[in-house]
Amino acid sequence: MKTRAAVAFEAKKPLEIVEVDLEGPKAGEVLVEIKATGVCHTDAYTLDGLDSEGLFPSILGHEGAGVVLDIGAGVTSVKPGDHVIPLYTPECRQCKSCLSGKTNLCTAIRATQGKGLMPDGTTRFSYKGQPIFHYMGCSTFANHIVLPEIALAKIREDAPFQSSCYIGCGVTTGVGAVVNTAKVQVGENVVVFGLGGIGLNVIQGARLAGAARIIGIDINPDREEWGRRFGMTHFLNTKGLSREDVVAKIVELTDGGADYSFDCTGNTEVMRTALECCHRGWGTSIVIGVAEAGKEIATRPFQLVTGRNWRGTAFGGAKGRTDVPKIVDWYMDGKIEIDPMITHVLPLDRINDAFDLMHEGKSIRSVIVY
Amino acid sequence: MKTRAAVAFEAKKPLEIVEVDLEGPKAGEVLVEIKATGVCHTDAYTLDGLDSEGLFPSILGHEGAGVVLDIGAGVTSVKPGDHVIPLYTPECRQCKSCLSGKTNLCTAIRATQGKGLMPDGTTRFSYKGQPIFHYMGCSTFANHIVLPEIALAKIREDAPFQSSCYIGCGVTTGVGAVVNTAKVQVGENVVVFGLGGIGLNVIQGARLAGAARIIGIDINPDREEWGRRFGMTHFLNTKGLSREDVVAKIVELTDGGADYSFDCTGNTEVMRTALECCHRGWGTSIVIGVAEAGKEIATRPFQLVTGRNWRGTAFGGAKGRTDVPKIVDWYMDGKIEIDPMITHVLPLDRINDAFDLMHEGKSIRSVIVY
Repeated sequence: MKTRAAVAFEAKKPLEIVEVDLEGPKAGEVLVEIKATGVCHTDAYTLDGLDSEGLFPSILGHEGAGVVLDIGAGVTSVKPGDHVIPLYTPECRQCKSCLSGKTNLCTAIRATQGKGLMPDGTTRFSYKGQPIFHYMGCSTFANHIVLPEIALAKIREDAPFQSSCYIGCGVTTGVGAVVNTAKVQVGENVVVFGLGGIGLNVIQGARLAGAARIIGIDINPDREEWGRRFGMTHFLNTKGLSREDVVAKIVELTDGGADYSFDCTGNTEVMRTALECCHRGWGTSIVIGVAEAGKEIATRPFQLVTGRNWRGTAFGGAKGRTDVPKIVDWYMDGKIEIDPMITHVLPLDRINDAFDLMHEGKSIRSVIVY
Repeated sequence: MKTRAAVAFEAKKPLEIVEVDLEGPKAGEVLVEIKATGVCHTDAYTLDGLDSEGLFPSILGHEGAGVVLDIGAGVTSVKPGDHVIPLYTPECRQCKSCLSGKTNLCTAIRATQGKGLMPDGTTRFSYKGQPIFHYMGCSTFANHIVLPEIALAKIREDAPFQSSCYIGCGVTTGVGAVVNTAKVQVGENVVVFGLGGIGLNVIQGARLAGAARIIGIDINPDREEWGRRFGMTHFLNTKGLSREDVVAKIVELTDGGADYSFDCTGNTEVMRTALECCHRGWGTSIVIGVAEAGKEIATRPFQLVTGRNWRGTAFGGAKGRTDVPKIVDWYMDGKIEIDPMITHVLPLDRINDAFDLMHEGKSIRSVIVY
C-alpha cells in the first residue's frame, strides 16, 4: 500500500512529506493507522545527526497512537479496530529480561530494531524502490506503519488519540520513572532537574505518588509557572549557582537531601548535582535524560559509600503492554493530566515547524494529527 | 586509670607502646577492657597520612572485642561483665537515620567522632597531661577504652575474643554488604573484585546467601586458593586485561552480566569495571573499598539508563547493636568462618609487625591479643 510519511532522507535536513510504499504485515506483525504522534527531543537528536547510530533514510517518530487495520498470521493479542500505542520498548513476556520481573528492557527484537529493521531483518517501507529504515521500532511519522505484535499496547477506545499518543513516550517516561523505577512513597521529597516535558511528567508522577515536597529546578524562570501547574511545591532557579550551592539549598529545603532526584536534562554535570543533593544513607538519583555521545558522569565514591544510589530509567521502567494501558486509565480518570502539556497541534505537512518550536523552547509538546 | 596503648604520635611513624591515662566513663559511657583487636587497612590508611582528616596524637584501632568493666550514669543496655564489640558506626535508635529504617549510618555522635572526641567534646585519653584523640569512636589499640553506650554491641559470652573482634569491621563489612545492602538471593550471580579480607568475606556472604556463581577477581594468582576456600566458584586473573576484556569475560561467565558486583579494592578504575560488568536491566554494583582522596568514579550515563545500579555500603549496612550480635551467632553456628582468615596473632608490643605484614600482603588479618 501507499501511505503519507515525513521522511528523513539525511541528517540535518528538514523532513520531506512524500508517499511511501508500505508492505503489509507478515507473521506476528500488525498494520496500524497512526492517528496522532508527538514530536520528541529524541527525534530531533537523531535528525540533528547527534546519534552516532542514527540511520538514513528513515521515518522518525516513536510517540504515536492509532488503530489496528490488519494483522499477520499468528497475531492474537490485537485485532482490526483495536486502539493501540506503538512501543519502542516492546514486551515479549518470554525473554530473560521480561521473565526476570526486574526490568522493562525486553531484548526480544533489540538487535534488528537497533538496525532500523523488522525482526526478520527487512524493512516494510520503501520509496521509489529504495528501502527506508524504521526508527525505534515505530516510525510514527508515517500515517500507516507495521510493527511486531509485541510492540503494541492495546488501550481503551474512549481515549483521544491526540493526547494519548503522548503516553507513548514522554508521559510514561516521566510518570513511570516515579512510580515504576523510584517507587516514590507518600511523604517523600522529590527533586526534579529540568522542567521540560519529561520533568513536568516527573512532577505530576510525584504528585500522584503523594510526595511531600516536589522541588523543581531550571535555569529558565518561565518554567516555574509550568512546574506549579502540575504539582511542584518549590522552584529553584539555579542559573549561575555552583554545584555546592545548589546542593546546599536542596539539603536545606528537604531537611537533609532529596529522597529521590531525577535528571531530566541530559547534562552530565547536572546528573552529578542530582546525585549529590540526595539524602545521606538512602537518597536515590535517577538519570532519565540522554547525554551527548561520549560524555561521562563522575562523582567521588564517598557519595555512594555514604548511602546514595545512582540509577537510571528508560521508558519509565514501564512494561509497555502491561503498564501503558494503566497510564491511559490514569489519564482518563483524571489522575494525571496531559492536555495542558500539548501546546501545539499541527498537520503532518507542518512537522518541521514542530521541530523548530522545540528547538526554540516554545513548546512543551507538539502533536501531529493525521 | 592507667592502661597500655599503642599511640600514633604522628603520621608515618611506628606506633609507640606506652602507658596512657584514661578517665572513667561519664554519663552514658562505658569502660571496656579490650581483649583482642584486628589491624585493618583503614588504620594503616590513617597512620600512613593518607586520610586528610586524620588526627594525631591518637590511639588507632576500630576492630575489637572485650568486656565491660564499668558503666556511667544512665547506662542500661550493658553491665559489667558483658562481652561487647565496639562500633565505629553506632546505633542510637533515635536519630532520623536510625528511625528511617533505610540506613545504618546513625548520625547521633557523628560530629564529635569525626573530631576524635567523645560526644561531650572532650577526650578520655591523655599522655603526660596532653590529650590524645580517640579514633573512629573506638581506639581499640588501647587495653582499656571508654565509649558511648550506643557504640557497643553486646554479644554472647561463648564467642572467643580473638576471632569475634574481626566482626567489629572486616567480617561485617563484607558479609553485611551481601546480606544487608545487596540482599543477594538464592541463585543470583555475584562478582567480587579484590580478594583481600573484605573480598573473602563478601565471598562467604554470597555463599551464605546461596549465590549461584561466585566469581572472584584479583591480579594476584595466590588469591585463587583463598577465594575457593570460602566459596568462590570461578577465578579470573585480570592482570593486563583491558576493562572491555574483563567485562566481556564476566558477561560470558554469567550469561549476561553480574546480578551483583562488589568493589573491594578502593581503585576507582576497578569500581567502573565492577559497574559495567553488571547485567543490563538490573545488575547492581556496590562500592565497599575506600578510594584515595580526590579520586573520582566515572562512567557513561547509558550504563545507568540501561538499568545498572551504582551503590555503596559502609560497615556492611549493618546496624551495629542489632546486626552484629547476629553475625556473631552465624560464626558460632558455623554459618560463616573466621578462624582461617586470622593468619597472625600477635601481642600488643608487636603491633608494628602487623602493619608490616599487611603492607607486604602477607596477612589476611592480624589480630592483637592483650
